[in-house]
Amino acid sequence: MRDFQIYEIKQSVFENNDREADKLRTELKKEKTFLLNLMSSPGSGKTTTLLRTIDGLMGKHSMGIMEADIDSDVDAKTIAETGVRTIQLHTGGMCHLDAGMTRQGLEEMGTEGLDLVVLENVGNLVCPAEFDTGAVKNAMILSVPEGHDKPLKYPLMFSVCDALIINKIDVLPYFDFDMDKVIGFSRRRNPNIQIFPISAKTGEGVEAWCDWLSEQVSAWNG
Amino acid sequence: MRDFQIYEIKQSVFENNDREADKLRTELKKEKTFLLNLMSSPGSGKTTTLLRTIDGLMGKHSMGIMEADIDSDVDAKTIAETGVRTIQLHTGGMCHLDAGMTRQGLEEMGTEGLDLVVLENVGNLVCPAEFDTGAVKNAMILSVPEGHDKPLKYPLMFSVCDALIINKIDVLPYFDFDMDKVIGFSRRRNPNIQIFPISAKTGEGVEAWCDWLSEQVSAWNG
Repeated sequence: MRDFQIYEIKQSVFENNDREADKLRTELKKEKTFLLNLMSSPGSGKTTTLLRTIDGLMGKHSMGIMEADIDSDVDAKTIAETGVRTIQLHTGGMCHLDAGMTRQGLEEMGTEGLDLVVLENVGNLVCPAEFDTGAVKNAMILSVPEGHDKPLKYPLMFSVCDALIINKIDVLPYFDFDMDKVIGFSRRRNPNIQIFPISAKTGEGVEAWCDWLSEQVSAWNG
Repeated sequence: MRDFQIYEIKQSVFENNDREADKLRTELKKEKTFLLNLMSSPGSGKTTTLLRTIDGLMGKHSMGIMEADIDSDVDAKTIAETGVRTIQLHTGGMCHLDAGMTRQGLEEMGTEGLDLVVLENVGNLVCPAEFDTGAVKNAMILSVPEGHDKPLKYPLMFSVCDALIINKIDVLPYFDFDMDKVIGFSRRRNPNIQIFPISAKTGEGVEAWCDWLSEQVSAWNG
């Protein structure tokens, strides 16, 4: 038996996604629920980073996780084992979530008693950047093996994110990855972006990320 | 001065992309030009693999490369240094290329005298899988750091590809990547997929990939 539901979300019919996103944020503010939209390429370590984040914030915040994928439920299975409220959203082939789809997920999961919900968006550096989900903050993960030129090639994603997690720093010795360059390129797109180099595998750097996220949640819900 | 042009392609107006793709393939057949559509996540090593492929096929085939990106020209610069005919296509934010956009690129670059053109598609495992570009064959790269579960999460991409290059095998010792599993998962989606484990960095395995590609080109143009 599964510890989580699989829910098929449908492309929403709203013409004005920005307005729907603002409406959702206003409701979340009233409910004292902070929504984080977590984006990245496939395979950058979103789920492992989430496991570390759940561990780091356990006892401080009551969390819920929405796993959005085109198919499969491997990530939701892993997350549900931690005991946090989890739902798997299937996008029916869609490459991103908009505010209406995010709302469907939130309603299906239920946000009562949760002060922090994380939406793990579809693994894609292009389309998710174009749609405001209604989240309070956007964060993205770039992993070391992907290379330091990504802010040049996917500028919108780096522009819309409040936080950039640079994951897999444990394998830095094996890749030609220039940390100074990636920070410079990212800041050129987005001078205010908060940058957290971490290894979700070893736990290095995770505390600073969790502290930042916890502060954002407290500021929103306070 | 640049050795390549940057060309802004526009979303095409054709209602029936499949028909346009078939039409383009028929024309390429007549012109004896083989078009390969190369897809992957951001940062899986498409450009480095292309450099190895150019090196491996030099003297056997006359090649042209179309680099499609949302922004930047870092990859086209690298490719143009090899001396092969290169064009940078900017998609104006679009997350994929369709047959009409591919045709615009081919016309702008010019295919006279080329028997192999490679389209480096936008880094994205979702949207490019949904659009037939008119290519004769589709290939994708999955890199070891992305993990072996990707065929479960991005099934359409693995279904539409004739060849799967598994790149970055030089870093296998540092990742929990199960080669048998990824081969099994991929074959479940696509029993006929040709699989080539390589390291574009060290050159390991590249010869088998180049041999396969060369055979495809000769069969098409013969």
